[in-house]
Amino acid sequence: MKKTVVLFSDAGRNDLSLVGGKGANLGEMTNLGIPVPPGFTISTEVCNFYQHSYQYPDGLEREVMEALRHVEQAMEARFGDAQNPLLLSVRSGARVSMPGMMDTILNLGLNDATVEGLIKRTNNPRFGYDCYRRLVAMYGDVVLGLKPIAKEDIDPFEELLDAKKKARGAEVDTDLTADDLRQLVGEFKQAIKERTGQPFPENPLDQLWGAIGAVFKSWDGERAVAYRRLNNIPDEWGTAVNIQSMVYGNMGENSATGVAFTRNPATGAKELYGEFLVNAQGEDVVAGIRTPLQLMQLKEIMPEVYAQFEEIAYKLETHYRDMQDIEFTVQNGRLWILQTRRGKRTGFAAFQIAVDMVEEGLIDKKEALLRVEPDQLNQLLRPIFDMKQKEEAISSGKLLARGLNAGPGAASGRVVFNSLDAVEWKRRGEKVILARIETSPEDIKGMDAAEGILTQHGGMTSHAALVARQMGRVCVVGAGDLEIDYRSGCFQANDRVVREGDWISIDGSTGEVILGKLDTKPSEVLQVLLEKTLTPEQSGTYRTYHQIMSWADENRRLGVWANADQPEQAANAIAFGAEGIGLCRTEHMFFGGDRINAFREMILAADEMGRRAALRKLLPFQKEDFAGLFKVMGGRPVIIRTLDPPLHEFLPHSEGEMQILAGNLNMPVEDLKAKVESLREVNPMLGHRGCRLGIVYPEITEMQAEAILEAACEVTKTGVDVNPEIMIPLVGHVNELRDQDRLVRRIAAEVFARHGVKVNYKVGTMIELPRAAITADQIAEVAEFFSFGTNDLTQTAGGLSRDDSGRFLPIYVEMGILPQDPFATIDEDGIGRLMEWCVERGRATRPDMEIGICGEHGGDPSSIRFCHGIGLDYVSCSPFRLPIARLAAAQAALSEER
Amino acid sequence: MKKTVVLFSDAGRNDLSLVGGKGANLGEMTNLGIPVPPGFTISTEVCNFYQHSYQYPDGLEREVMEALRHVEQAMEARFGDAQNPLLLSVRSGARVSMPGMMDTILNLGLNDATVEGLIKRTNNPRFGYDCYRRLVAMYGDVVLGLKPIAKEDIDPFEELLDAKKKARGAEVDTDLTADDLRQLVGEFKQAIKERTGQPFPENPLDQLWGAIGAVFKSWDGERAVAYRRLNNIPDEWGTAVNIQSMVYGNMGENSATGVAFTRNPATGAKELYGEFLVNAQGEDVVAGIRTPLQLMQLKEIMPEVYAQFEEIAYKLETHYRDMQDIEFTVQNGRLWILQTRRGKRTGFAAFQIAVDMVEEGLIDKKEALLRVEPDQLNQLLRPIFDMKQKEEAISSGKLLARGLNAGPGAASGRVVFNSLDAVEWKRRGEKVILARIETSPEDIKGMDAAEGILTQHGGMTSHAALVARQMGRVCVVGAGDLEIDYRSGCFQANDRVVREGDWISIDGSTGEVILGKLDTKPSEVLQVLLEKTLTPEQSGTYRTYHQIMSWADENRRLGVWANADQPEQAANAIAFGAEGIGLCRTEHMFFGGDRINAFREMILAADEMGRRAALRKLLPFQKEDFAGLFKVMGGRPVIIRTLDPPLHEFLPHSEGEMQILAGNLNMPVEDLKAKVESLREVNPMLGHRGCRLGIVYPEITEMQAEAILEAACEVTKTGVDVNPEIMIPLVGHVNELRDQDRLVRRIAAEVFARHGVKVNYKVGTMIELPRAAITADQIAEVAEFFSFGTNDLTQTAGGLSRDDSGRFLPIYVEMGILPQDPFATIDEDGIGRLMEWCVERGRATRPDMEIGICGEHGGDPSSIRFCHGIGLDYVSCSPFRLPIARLAAAQAALSEER
Repeated sequence: MKKTVVLFSDAGRNDLSLVGGKGANLGEMTNLGIPVPPGFTISTEVCNFYQHSYQYPDGLEREVMEALRHVEQAMEARFGDAQNPLLLSVRSGARVSMPGMMDTILNLGLNDATVEGLIKRTNNPRFGYDCYRRLVAMYGDVVLGLKPIAKEDIDPFEELLDAKKKARGAEVDTDLTADDLRQLVGEFKQAIKERTGQPFPENPLDQLWGAIGAVFKSWDGERAVAYRRLNNIPDEWGTAVNIQSMVYGNMGENSATGVAFTRNPATGAKELYGEFLVNAQGEDVVAGIRTPLQLMQLKEIMPEVYAQFEEIAYKLETHYRDMQDIEFTVQNGRLWILQTRRGKRTGFAAFQIAVDMVEEGLIDKKEALLRVEPDQLNQLLRPIFDMKQKEEAISSGKLLARGLNAGPGAASGRVVFNSLDAVEWKRRGEKVILARIETSPEDIKGMDAAEGILTQHGGMTSHAALVARQMGRVCVVGAGDLEIDYRSGCFQANDRVVREGDWISIDGSTGEVILGKLDTKPSEVLQVLLEKTLTPEQSGTYRTYHQIMSWADENRRLGVWANADQPEQAANAIAFGAEGIGLCRTEHMFFGGDRINAFREMILAADEMGRRAALRKLLPFQKEDFAGLFKVMGGRPVIIRTLDPPLHEFLPHSEGEMQILAGNLNMPVEDLKAKVESLREVNPMLGHRGCRLGIVYPEITEMQAEAILEAACEVTKTGVDVNPEIMIPLVGHVNELRDQDRLVRRIAAEVFARHGVKVNYKVGTMIELPRAAITADQIAEVAEFFSFGTNDLTQTAGGLSRDDSGRFLPIYVEMGILPQDPFATIDEDGIGRLMEWCVERGRATRPDMEIGICGEHGGDPSSIRFCHGIGLDYVSCSPFRLPIARLAAAQAALSEER
Repeated sequence: MKKTVVLFSDAGRNDLSLVGGKGANLGEMTNLGIPVPPGFTISTEVCNFYQHSYQYPDGLEREVMEALRHVEQAMEARFGDAQNPLLLSVRSGARVSMPGMMDTILNLGLNDATVEGLIKRTNNPRFGYDCYRRLVAMYGDVVLGLKPIAKEDIDPFEELLDAKKKARGAEVDTDLTADDLRQLVGEFKQAIKERTGQPFPENPLDQLWGAIGAVFKSWDGERAVAYRRLNNIPDEWGTAVNIQSMVYGNMGENSATGVAFTRNPATGAKELYGEFLVNAQGEDVVAGIRTPLQLMQLKEIMPEVYAQFEEIAYKLETHYRDMQDIEFTVQNGRLWILQTRRGKRTGFAAFQIAVDMVEEGLIDKKEALLRVEPDQLNQLLRPIFDMKQKEEAISSGKLLARGLNAGPGAASGRVVFNSLDAVEWKRRGEKVILARIETSPEDIKGMDAAEGILTQHGGMTSHAALVARQMGRVCVVGAGDLEIDYRSGCFQANDRVVREGDWISIDGSTGEVILGKLDTKPSEVLQVLLEKTLTPEQSGTYRTYHQIMSWADENRRLGVWANADQPEQAANAIAFGAEGIGLCRTEHMFFGGDRINAFREMILAADEMGRRAALRKLLPFQKEDFAGLFKVMGGRPVIIRTLDPPLHEFLPHSEGEMQILAGNLNMPVEDLKAKVESLREVNPMLGHRGCRLGIVYPEITEMQAEAILEAACEVTKTGVDVNPEIMIPLVGHVNELRDQDRLVRRIAAEVFARHGVKVNYKVGTMIELPRAAITADQIAEVAEFFSFGTNDLTQTAGGLSRDDSGRFLPIYVEMGILPQDPFATIDEDGIGRLMEWCVERGRATRPDMEIGICGEHGGDPSSIRFCHGIGLDYVSCSPFRLPIARLAAAQAALSEER
């Protein structure tokens, strides 16, 4: 055995495996000369010994007592002394933080005698008995095992406390008097006696050893073992036990307690920022009973302590090279640092601090990149509400519902319930929020016209969420508390009724739905990049953003492409750093004015000739769309997917719309209804869609290929380089791709001959069916590129309908059956294995195969790391996720480097 | 080069690679002393030489001419002789038969001079010119390449022929006179000249070499190359060219032509069976212009020829050790055998012949097993129509439609359109055919009551087809020509209207739907096995069946289990050889009288307590069902699947039924409608079903586990061995199974404690999601058995909804995109790979894992072979497929042995 007991002053951060995380941290601070309440650590070696033999190594007791003497000297008090009692805390501390381990026990050393000493020294009987009753309850719960395991059982001490409060007419704990608390101590002890048959140990040393034993036993507790299995933590690591002297900030007017950040956690500004209370315990700050003071005021009240604190804060930040969140207590004018840790911060602050620290020389660029969280970038990009105004609205009861924060940002507008109204109202100059039970491709125009989109159903990857993020629209989905009634043009939210035209505000970063109008403002980054209403010089936020992005670009290997259908979206994508278009959904182009009519005419045509006639009408529109994209993308690759959704998605379903359409097409409405009915599918997800359309109706793919290649030739002739890649969706068998590939190549030869120009193009496929991944070696014989459609791959491989999984998926995540929502982050064990296999097999056939991902996972940092790991060439995501993807890609490369 | 030209008399069946299949066959017969029209083969070596150099090897011409001299001598005629012309045929012949290769060219050697010789010798100008015009057209099409490639283009010779017929008012070719045909020869030659710029070659040797060259070129033709790629045939195999003298059966009254089988192809009886025509060509037999004579009559007309033929037939059958289909021609009293091949036969005949030949010592038992086709067993098992009666009905225009032959057998009954009526009418003693647009679990009772089931929609694995086969019901599905109208209680079929109560007959072996009543009779095998109306001694068919089955059982390694839910089904299954139950679908048990009400009450309950109360009512029913099964199965394993379908499948959807149910449950119908609506799913296949139900509503699995294990304990106490295996459906993640496994084991411990009895049981899972197969190593940590649900695995891995794929799957098979319907036969390249991976990974974790298949593929012979190959323990299928499975399993083992 290396060491059994280690004083804080003998430990440091390199001793992690010996003294655990907390011990190493306390040791590190002690050795920096920081005034940490003295203490010591019983090492993990003892834990291992204990696990094997259920006894302590020889000499442990002696060593603990020696270490205790050190602590007593430093604190000028004695453990168990009735006049001047030293009180201790005992905490577990494994190498990594482990929920499921033993809780902390505070105030060890109190008994009927020492409590009087404590009272005398603090002149505060209530405080003394409060500490005492807390000790007895904690000891009973944690050491003696009275804490109930099942949720529905009641803690015996809480039961007694509640009874006491009831008897006293007390609402909160603090309403109880010193005497009440003293009585509770007695009652608690009685409960322990009754339930365990043993009295509460009055001897402080018995208390101490009881607590130490409880920590070591907790390492083998059911929850801790389960947690280790789940997180692959070896049993041999063991836990350490930290024994530390208690200090109190409530020993009078020259005592205080507080929390401070070394920089502003909201803005990142380099300034001490914090709060404290004089003559108070840490809990009082949290409980919010007294309003805390700003840290600056400490400078006036206790100037020396403040100066010392300032120095310590600087030392800790410099030492840890990160913004610190520091807990401190002043006991009788003496400053104690209880804890320092990485300070939580907003996205703004995170980026500002990272950039500043590089400039200050504290960290290098690579470390700066690893310090920030990609998702926090959203905060730099999205329009935001005036925070104060929003909080006022919520506190005055205007919160209507909370949904999922599907499209970050803030939007206010008047509520409308259908796409046509959204477009119409916008034309009149109104700002609108489109509220739908759920959305479908028919709603695209309305979504585009709206400031924000709100749905009653659907999850983070529902149609509404997906399209909104791609469009950069604010979006809240799955607000289940709403009941939207299209017919009466209103929705109910709890007891309120909101009618068409009423103002509401939605916060897509938090999921809040608020009644009334709130002011919004676009982010500075957007003002610089897209609106050009600010220059880079005018915006510090932009400069921070730009700095991080350029460092990210220097360090990433993955390409970063965008999902975009329109020239305007493509232009935005380029502003956000897109190196290509990974997914252009052609079907979105079918929803403009005359186009949808022609498209419906195609669907409803009686025969191929009728379909061809209708498709001819669509050709010029598609060609124009593609030409626009090619011009904007100027030589960057553009992957265009041929028609994917089932045809019935393009037909109207309401009686009124059918009447109108039948009139337009000069067909009896009954015939139209019959046709709509005949196209209905039991499982549209697995139905007649994707390449199955282009194979059964080759004229559709022919038209689309012609439009793409015609546009490519025309743009090429203007001197712009063009690199189209034609992507065939939903391929399951190589022969499907072979069929469509042959067709595209035939059209290409015709178009090139007509124009006398040749354009480089590729034909490839989505990998969105398990069968495609499984037979990637065969498909790669034809496909020149693969693009993972991980949304559909997750649906099919897992048998999970995105639209229907709301009934069980949240429950699965809550129960821990699934670690996370597989639609948000790639399920590496399942879908990931399939992807890995696909990449291996595909490249075995075609070693230089271009492989990317265009599913929504392409914008998810954890999924991006996975994609980097399996060797993809690029990730493609919605334009507004691009900065996140660039950063995540850089982090993936840097993590691999380390 | 080994050999360039081989006379038939120098070749045999071992020379396959040198002379191809046809050459080897003709050589083999020649060497047996069979009078084959003499000829020779240009070897595959020449083909290879030609492919590399585009010229023939030195000396080929000389060798061909030498061989030709041999033929001329044997036939006593000369090639190109104007008086006594020898005519030749040229045919390609690769090692394996290859569609996509060159067609045959007949009558080579005819020109303006030799045709007169032919006419003189046959005394038949019409015949001479008919041969001649055929030669010119074939030569133009095949050798000179005038045969159109695209379907829509017209063959120039057919065009001229049609014009001629029109001009002569002729309906069929035979209406044309000798003179018409002579004119056509001239017109055909003119067409060749115009289109190719070259005249038709009058020189017979030019014709011969032209034909030979065309065969060799066709080896590199686009279709042949594509076929080789698809079937993995090496290019180096090459094709041979067979040159054979023509013989004619129309040279007078001492000439004839015919076809004969060495045994009766309908019954298998050991007797020569065939037809012939005097003074006729082979085509005349096929064209059906003259009624052919029975072979027996040849004995009277040409006794010597008949005797010779009888001897040859015996010799060929003995040589090939199988029933032969022999084509013969008698030219001027001389018998020529043109071809012999394995004779096609009915199932009855196939089995009879196999058993007879073993008794005769011609083949051994193993060979007998490999000779028969498992699917033909159906013919021995199904009730059948009186064939003559059926043919009369069809020829008198009573065929209403043709659908898919989903449930073999024959049934007549009065048509009804819903389940309730079917039950009601049956109670009145009526025989009914249940006709539905499609069926759902609600229809189970009606399907059970009906003689046969007919659906307008659905494929071979639709609900109707699946349940019908399991029940042994006659079934025709996907009869798309029907238009069923529930409201008016009738269906239209083309122009006829069939109303409720009208008699119809459906043939589930052919898919025919016929108006009116036809007589049926149960098969003899069924009468012995199930009805016991015949003893084994009374039925030859049964003895044949039993013989084949016992040989099969001696030779198979795969276990053969049945899918069955009811004791009666299980008893049938045992009669058919079941060794266990591979799938008991518990949901089918929820459709009896009170059960469905209790089950619906459970679904509609407001909370868990309500659900538990309703489930309590179901418990005794389920227990009774399981006890019944266990008793019948007596110790054989019984796999019971917990609830699988989505709950909405159990609720009514029509207005009327909802009214009734709401009344029964004392709830407002609007509430019921809202609940039904709220359970609606976009993609029910991927929705809230399978173990997802048991996880969200653990009380359902609890009740089912309790019912299974209670029943097991009770039956055990009666002294019967019980081996239940509880199967959790739709597991995608090991944690799902872990949850349900824990629950089942908890219930088991409770039940066993209550009964003081322990029962061996297993907990395992269906493998029906790709994710389950991919993570089989993890799932095997918990699962004690796997059972492949290949229907759903095919649906999810391929993204193919069984219910919706009718729009493209048939087109895919027709286009050759898929080699076959993946729902009928396991898609080995895709689903098969996944299964293989799953077996490997699963057994890596749990080497003794029991793995089987319970999807519909379990009864498909080709799929059974695959399951044998990847090492499954058993296949499970519907009871009536069991004999097929036993035989297929034996064949798989025997094929592997070889």
